[in-house]
Amino acid sequence: MGETSMRVTVWGENIHDRTDERVRAIYPQGMHETIAGALREALGPGATVRTATLDQPDHGLTDAVLESTDVLTWWGHAGHHLVSDEVVANVQRRVLSGMGLLVLHSGHLSRPFVRLMGTSCSLRWREADDREVVWTVNPGHPIAAGIPQAFVIPQQEMYGEYFDIPQPDELVLISSFSGGEVFRSGCCFMRGSGRIFYFSPGHEHFPVYDHPIVQRIIANGVRWAAASARTHYVTTQCFESPTGWFEHLGAER
Amino acid sequence: MGETSMRVTVWGENIHDRTDERVRAIYPQGMHETIAGALREALGPGATVRTATLDQPDHGLTDAVLESTDVLTWWGHAGHHLVSDEVVANVQRRVLSGMGLLVLHSGHLSRPFVRLMGTSCSLRWREADDREVVWTVNPGHPIAAGIPQAFVIPQQEMYGEYFDIPQPDELVLISSFSGGEVFRSGCCFMRGSGRIFYFSPGHEHFPVYDHPIVQRIIANGVRWAAASARTHYVTTQCFESPTGWFEHLGAER
Amino acid sequence: MGETSMRVTVWGENIHDRTDERVRAIYPQGMHETIAGALREALGPGATVRTATLDQPDHGLTDAVLESTDVLTWWGHAGHHLVSDEVVANVQRRVLSGMGLLVLHSGHLSRPFVRLMGTSCSLRWREADDREVVWTVNPGHPIAAGIPQAFVIPQQEMYGEYFDIPQPDELVLISSFSGGEVFRSGCCFMRGSGRIFYFSPGHEHFPVYDHPIVQRIIANGVRWAAASARTHYVTTQCFESPTGWFEHLGAER
Amino acid sequence: MGETSMRVTVWGENIHDRTDERVRAIYPQGMHETIAGALREALGPGATVRTATLDQPDHGLTDAVLESTDVLTWWGHAGHHLVSDEVVANVQRRVLSGMGLLVLHSGHLSRPFVRLMGTSCSLRWREADDREVVWTVNPGHPIAAGIPQAFVIPQQEMYGEYFDIPQPDELVLISSFSGGEVFRSGCCFMRGSGRIFYFSPGHEHFPVYDHPIVQRIIANGVRWAAASARTHYVTTQCFESPTGWFEHLGAER
Repeated sequence: MGETSMRVTVWGENIHDRTDERVRAIYPQGMHETIAGALREALGPGATVRTATLDQPDHGLTDAVLESTDVLTWWGHAGHHLVSDEVVANVQRRVLSGMGLLVLHSGHLSRPFVRLMGTSCSLRWREADDREVVWTVNPGHPIAAGIPQAFVIPQQEMYGEYFDIPQPDELVLISSFSGGEVFRSGCCFMRGSGRIFYFSPGHEHFPVYDHPIVQRIIANGVRWAAASARTHYVTTQCFESPTGWFEHLGAER
Repeated sequence: MGETSMRVTVWGENIHDRTDERVRAIYPQGMHETIAGALREALGPGATVRTATLDQPDHGLTDAVLESTDVLTWWGHAGHHLVSDEVVANVQRRVLSGMGLLVLHSGHLSRPFVRLMGTSCSLRWREADDREVVWTVNPGHPIAAGIPQAFVIPQQEMYGEYFDIPQPDELVLISSFSGGEVFRSGCCFMRGSGRIFYFSPGHEHFPVYDHPIVQRIIANGVRWAAASARTHYVTTQCFESPTGWFEHLGAER
Repeated sequence: MGETSMRVTVWGENIHDRTDERVRAIYPQGMHETIAGALREALGPGATVRTATLDQPDHGLTDAVLESTDVLTWWGHAGHHLVSDEVVANVQRRVLSGMGLLVLHSGHLSRPFVRLMGTSCSLRWREADDREVVWTVNPGHPIAAGIPQAFVIPQQEMYGEYFDIPQPDELVLISSFSGGEVFRSGCCFMRGSGRIFYFSPGHEHFPVYDHPIVQRIIANGVRWAAASARTHYVTTQCFESPTGWFEHLGAER
Repeated sequence: MGETSMRVTVWGENIHDRTDERVRAIYPQGMHETIAGALREALGPGATVRTATLDQPDHGLTDAVLESTDVLTWWGHAGHHLVSDEVVANVQRRVLSGMGLLVLHSGHLSRPFVRLMGTSCSLRWREADDREVVWTVNPGHPIAAGIPQAFVIPQQEMYGEYFDIPQPDELVLISSFSGGEVFRSGCCFMRGSGRIFYFSPGHEHFPVYDHPIVQRIIANGVRWAAASARTHYVTTQCFESPTGWFEHLGAER
């Protein structure tokens, strides 16, 4: 992140948000607007936060939007299969080139996340009324800044292990559920020049995105994902490199 | 790996091997036969080693072959784009379910490897006559067993950083080249229940696969990749899991 | 580990085991004998398992014993401060040179473990009657071989986060407790040429070491820790190295 | 790091700097003053940079100094054994509680670094006139910000593998030497709530700390090490924790 404003795009599938009365009652403007509003408040004037949704042209993620996005957050569920190949490839390419990506809750099966992980990203789940306790296992991590050692989400969908992801580069949060399950609920991955944070709390039938600590974690995650270095050279192509090619490279001004 | 025989499939693209006189002179039976022969000698009667090539039906990698393969080795270059979607998906699925995968040299751009990594897997290269020195940076790793601290490959194609892979779960080897470049030349990745070893030495124009230490590293890599546990439950699908579902699970007999 | 027999030394502090009636009732021969017996049965004739205790000369860990030990298991609690500087230094040195180390339960504060980790290794605890559920989060790991996705220990001391350890090189098990806590209960660390496995279940007031799955995990851990490569060169000293020193190194015969 | 000024303490052993004519010619005020001056220029008014040396009371690292230090940089060589047990313990404790630590060149054998790593930290070395080429293998890492893919240090002491450290949490730089050796020259470790960066270039007989890219990496390293979260709870002690102790924890204001 340079000195300039951080540019965040909050992507929401916006299906349940429009069609499910329970969800509309909790998130009248859609989950993406709740998340975007929380980010605007947390990040302040140093950030520009916009939203994009599945039903927009290119799902709201045109090249121009992606190129001007420092961090993208992603919530999807029912419409994973409706996301186009082109947008998936473009999101992946942008992450490898340095864009941050926050993947929320059921986004574990979103096409960009599955593509970037290389695994099935499957897990165990239960729609009941489990209580989730979220534990910090990496207290010095920037995503844990200001977060208590443990906090309670009174009602949540259970997400449990085995979660088929590569071992996270940094594991920040682990959750327990009243049913006895555990889940790696806050996981950091570095891929190419980009940073990815998966954060599992967030079922659409509970007001999880209104929880102040959940909001703080998402804001911390956005700041963390924005802090990767901007490389001034291309890192995602092969280059034939004659002997001595590197002799006179200089630092970026 | 249980007490039974280890089953290895050595996959070779077999294009240069047939069409390029220089390669035919070094590897008259194809690189895959050289590699398979070295493995048969190193692994002994405890292993069954067969070969498969691109031009066979299903590239020689039918479901039956993959299901009866504990470790697959992969060399490809000119024909990456000719590998079918179905074989790529099946190899990925088998790795996540526990099959080992050794990716050799130009296989860094093979479709199964790129799919499993989630990154571009690009790198820098130079076809010249660099000398490569391969260094062990993880001497207790099983892949380093019996390998000297450093060994020399007199002539090699240069493969240099930046290599766009996820940070390896275990970094075993780093190479230097006479041109001054460095490369993470022996990288271990765990994905799902499977183990992946990328090993870069192996250009087709030099007799690298005849080098005794290179052969030993490949044999060590096959043993290491075969040593993941065989899970007796499915790890690549989502499961709805009612409260208490795990109460009476037992150990595998 | 070579083809020869695996040599295991089970170290027990043997204080509670002698002085606490509750512990004597559960482990009449001491916890170390229960663990040693389980290992003898699990590892079979391929392994030699002996015990050593704090009150023996050099705590039973003379140079001769350590030099002939492939894997050392360690249970201590009340007597951590009684372990001599010399034994601590020798255990550390042997681990860096390739000896495996299993650290059990309250051994998290043992001097060799704290020395090898470089952190405080502190945690949260509660002696109550929590139920512990142990989850596998790395199903392909050799330590998870034959272990169910989850298993229950009916009564346990609670060990909870934050556990002040370096991020494990491989995280295999996570536990939940009925009080809501979570704990990284099965953690692998590679240090030098040695492998370390910390496994938390095992309070002295409950018959945890009689649990068949706990026994299996400990046996798996011993096998895993024994599988590091034996280096034929010294890795724990600095060497002045003239130009070209590595030119003629060969593989180990 | 909060909004307030970053407080950096540059520690120099200051032995060679005073007694070796060659070193005095290159670093007339001592290496610590060269490093401190470069940091003042790079970090600007947002940082306070002071120095401390071995010969001062408590080596200049009193409790008051350590408590008011966000990042400590450490250069030592001839006087490692002269650093007091108390200062070693205090530096370790402060790192685990969140202080950043940059360990430079021969500081690989400094007592605080060895204590925090838990390994021997030994390596291979040669005082000759090797050319070192430093390669970025993690281009998105904040320490790589503005750094070219490779840069040349014309003359350097050779530091080569095997370097007996735990596998770094993040590997940022790898060097090659004209003699053919490689070295993991930029390594990040997270320990407790603190961040540690080991950076190997810097021999006292060459003007390495005057190199603009070396200076930039050190400044980047200080910024990175300062960016760990400040925890508002104690992470380095064991706590007995009654059932439900976490129910009403709140976020930090």
